[in-house]
Amino acid sequence: MGVSTLFDPDGIAVIGASKTPGKLGNDAMSNIEVYDTEIYPVNPSSSGTVFGYEFVDSVQETDADLAFCCVPGPLQPEVLEECGEAGVDAAVIFAGGFAEAGDEGKELQEAVATIADEYDITVLGPNTAGYAIPHNDLYGSFVPRIRDVNSGNIGLVTQSAGVGITMSFQLTREGYGVSAMFGLGNRMNTEFADVIPLLDADPRTDAIVMHVEGTEDVDALLDACQSSETPIVAYKVGKHDIADLAQAHTAAPAQENAIYEDGFNHPGLVTVSSTTELIDAGRVLADSPTPNGTNVGIVTAQAGPGIIITDYLKGTDATFPNLTNETRERLDDILPGITYTENPVDTGRPMPEFGEVVDTVTRDDRIDIVLVYEIYEDSLGYPVDELSKLSTEVDKPILFTVAGPDHALEDERREMENLGIPTFNTPERGAQAVGALIDSTTKSD
Amino acid sequence: MGVSTLFDPDGIAVIGASKTPGKLGNDAMSNIEVYDTEIYPVNPSSSGTVFGYEFVDSVQETDADLAFCCVPGPLQPEVLEECGEAGVDAAVIFAGGFAEAGDEGKELQEAVATIADEYDITVLGPNTAGYAIPHNDLYGSFVPRIRDVNSGNIGLVTQSAGVGITMSFQLTREGYGVSAMFGLGNRMNTEFADVIPLLDADPRTDAIVMHVEGTEDVDALLDACQSSETPIVAYKVGKHDIADLAQAHTAAPAQENAIYEDGFNHPGLVTVSSTTELIDAGRVLADSPTPNGTNVGIVTAQAGPGIIITDYLKGTDATFPNLTNETRERLDDILPGITYTENPVDTGRPMPEFGEVVDTVTRDDRIDIVLVYEIYEDSLGYPVDELSKLSTEVDKPILFTVAGPDHALEDERREMENLGIPTFNTPERGAQAVGALIDSTTKSD
Repeated sequence: MGVSTLFDPDGIAVIGASKTPGKLGNDAMSNIEVYDTEIYPVNPSSSGTVFGYEFVDSVQETDADLAFCCVPGPLQPEVLEECGEAGVDAAVIFAGGFAEAGDEGKELQEAVATIADEYDITVLGPNTAGYAIPHNDLYGSFVPRIRDVNSGNIGLVTQSAGVGITMSFQLTREGYGVSAMFGLGNRMNTEFADVIPLLDADPRTDAIVMHVEGTEDVDALLDACQSSETPIVAYKVGKHDIADLAQAHTAAPAQENAIYEDGFNHPGLVTVSSTTELIDAGRVLADSPTPNGTNVGIVTAQAGPGIIITDYLKGTDATFPNLTNETRERLDDILPGITYTENPVDTGRPMPEFGEVVDTVTRDDRIDIVLVYEIYEDSLGYPVDELSKLSTEVDKPILFTVAGPDHALEDERREMENLGIPTFNTPERGAQAVGALIDSTTKSD
Repeated sequence: MGVSTLFDPDGIAVIGASKTPGKLGNDAMSNIEVYDTEIYPVNPSSSGTVFGYEFVDSVQETDADLAFCCVPGPLQPEVLEECGEAGVDAAVIFAGGFAEAGDEGKELQEAVATIADEYDITVLGPNTAGYAIPHNDLYGSFVPRIRDVNSGNIGLVTQSAGVGITMSFQLTREGYGVSAMFGLGNRMNTEFADVIPLLDADPRTDAIVMHVEGTEDVDALLDACQSSETPIVAYKVGKHDIADLAQAHTAAPAQENAIYEDGFNHPGLVTVSSTTELIDAGRVLADSPTPNGTNVGIVTAQAGPGIIITDYLKGTDATFPNLTNETRERLDDILPGITYTENPVDTGRPMPEFGEVVDTVTRDDRIDIVLVYEIYEDSLGYPVDELSKLSTEVDKPILFTVAGPDHALEDERREMENLGIPTFNTPERGAQAVGALIDSTTKSD
C-alpha cells in the first residue's frame, strides 16, 4: 500500500530539486540527503550534483518508489503523470493553490487526483510542509531544521503541517520527541484514516496525537480512531466560527463541531483544546499505565499549587476519595503533625520524608492516579529512589509536577521520565495531564 | 509605615538563625547574607558566626528594624514581644500552625496579632515562605535557590508563597524576571491592599500579578486594585469548591467566587485562570502600549497556528476588522498571489517579504493590536529591522509568537523583547496574551 511507502521508501525522487539555497527544492534535498536509500534529484534544467547526488532529467530515469514534488501547482498534473509512468507508489505534493484556493484550484486538484487514481499513487498533500520520521532519518519536508526534531514515542497526524512542526519543536525543546509527524494538508487521497492504522501498528508509537480542522470523511476518521489500540488524543479546532479560514487553509468542509465531539466520545480517545495539552496528554497516555478509575490522590509539598490543581480537576470527572485509615495512620507516623492528611496531602514544605509520603499515598487501594507537586530543593532532591520502587511495584499512573530552578532539577526530572513517570513544569499542565487520563478512563466505562 | 520596611530594611535580625544546613534558620541566613545592611543572627544557644555574621542572644541587642522569625509557632508570641521591645518595625513569620490550623492555631494567631498591634509591627505571614526583591538582593525567604530568580518588571503578590515562587522560577526559566514577589500567607496584618500600593509606586514594577485564594477584606483589595495606576492581572482560585483546602492553607474565608469576579470587572484589571496566563498577561501589560480598541490583526506565516489563535480569540471580545483597501493593495504588491489577504493574513510560508507584510498590517488604521506567528527559518530570521522601526513609529501592541528550534531563534527573540515586543512560544500563549489586552481594553470602555 502507498502510505507504507512513506514510512519505508526504496529510492526517492526529488522533483524540482535545486542547487539554490532557500529554494524549496534545495531545502527538501538538504533534509532528505541523510536518508539511507538512493536519492534522485530531478531537474531537466540542472546538471552536476546537489548534496552529492547527481541530477537526472526525469523521474522516469529513476528507480524511485517515492517522489517529493517541489514544483508549483500548475506543473503538478504533468509531474504526477510522469511519476505514474515511472512506477512511483507515493508522492508528497508540497505546493498550495489547490482545493483551498477557489474554483480554479479545485479543478487543478481534481485533475491531479484523477491521475493519482489512474496510477494508484498515494499522495500526501497537496498544500503540506510534509512529514518526518526522525528515528529513520526520513524527512519528507522543506522545513529547515526539521532534522533537529528529536526521536520519541509520540506520533503526530496534523491537518496543518505547521501545527505538527510547531508541536514537534515544542516536544524537542522540552526534551521529548516524535515517532512520526504527518502534515495532511488538503488530504487529496491520504486521510487521517490512512495514517492512523500505520501509526497504531508502529511499535515506536505509544500515543497518537491528532490536530483536526475538518474532513469530509468523518466516519472513516472515527472508525480509524475506534479501531486503534494505541491511545489517541484529538484537538478539533473550531470551537468558534472559523469555517472560512479552514476552507482557505486545507479545504476543510464547513461542519458542525458537534459531530466530532460526539464521535470522539469513545474509549481510548481523549479530547483537548490546545497544542500544549495535545503534547502533554500524548506523553501521559504514552508513558503511564491505564488507570483503574478516576480516584486521584494529590501529594504536594506546597499547598497553593496543590489547590490550583485540585480546583482544575474538580471541573473534570476526577474524584477525590478520602484516604484509608491505614494510609492516614501511616502518614501520621511519618510526619507527626503533618499539615493536611486529607486528599490532597500537603506536607507544607519539602522534607526528607516526602518520598515516603508519596509512597504511602500511591499504595492506598482507593487511589487510581497519583499527582505530585514539589518545588525543588537541592539538599533534598526529588524522591527518585521511592519512585523507582513504586514504578516497578505499583501499576498506577504517577505524574510529577516540578518547579524550581530548571538546571538544578533537570537530571532528576530525566530519571523520573526514564522510570515512566511523566513530569510537567506548571501546576496547570500537571492537572491537565491528569485530566487526560481521567478522560480516557471515563470513556472506557 | 511597616510594609515599606520590607522593601528597604535597615538592619535585619534573623531570629532562630542556625549553623545547621537544611534548617530553616540556616536557609534564611543563606539567602539574606548578600543584602547590604547589618545582619544579626539571633540565637541564644549558638555562638560564633554564621555566613560571617556574629550570633547575638537576643533581638534586643540589635539595631534591626526588620526581623525574620525562624522559630516554631508556639514561640512566636514571646519572640514578637521581644521584637516590639527592640523597636522592630516589621517581621516575617514563616511558621505555620496558626489560623489555618484549627481553633488552637487561631488563638495563637490572635495572641500574636495583639502583640503586633500593641507594638505597631507589620507582619508578613504567618505561614509564608516570605518575599523576594531580586534587584535589591533582598530575599526574606527560606526557599533555597530563591536567589536564582531574575530581576525584572513584574510584581507578584500571591496568597500562596509557593505559587509566587513557582511563577518566579517560571519567569526566570523563560528569560524574564520579577521586581518583587510577596507571599502573603495568613495575612495577619499585611494584606493585598497593603502591598499593592507599594508595588504601584515602585518604578521597577510595570505590571502587578496577583494570586488570590480569598480574603476577609475584599473591599480593601478591590479598592487597592482600582486605585492602582499599574495594570493588574488577577487569578482567583476557586472556580470549584476548594473552600476547605483554602481555609486549611492560608485561613482563606469561604466566599462566593462571584464577589471577586464582579469586583475585578474594572478598567486596568485583567482576570485569568492559570499561573502561566498570569505570567503572560503580566508581561504583555508591562511591556505593550495600551491598545485603542479590540481590533486584532493577525499575520501568520503558517495558516494552521493562525487558525488556532483566531479560534481562541473569537471566544473573547476581540474583533477582526477587514483590512482597508489600501492595506490589501499594498499586500498584493508585496506578495502577488498571497495565500490569504483577509484577516488573518497568511503568507503560507516565511519569506523575505514577511517583515513588510507585518509592517503593512500594523500600519492599518483599523488595527489596534497585532499578533504575528512564524516558524523560524535560519536563512530568513525574524523581521527584527521592520519591528524595530514599527516599535518607534507606531504606538500599538505587537506580539510575536515564535516556533522552531529554540537555540536558533533565541537571539532574535531577545532583540524583539528589547524592542518592547513580547514573545510567546505556543499559539495558545500568544492568543491568551492578546486576550489579556482585550480584557483590559473592554473594561476601560
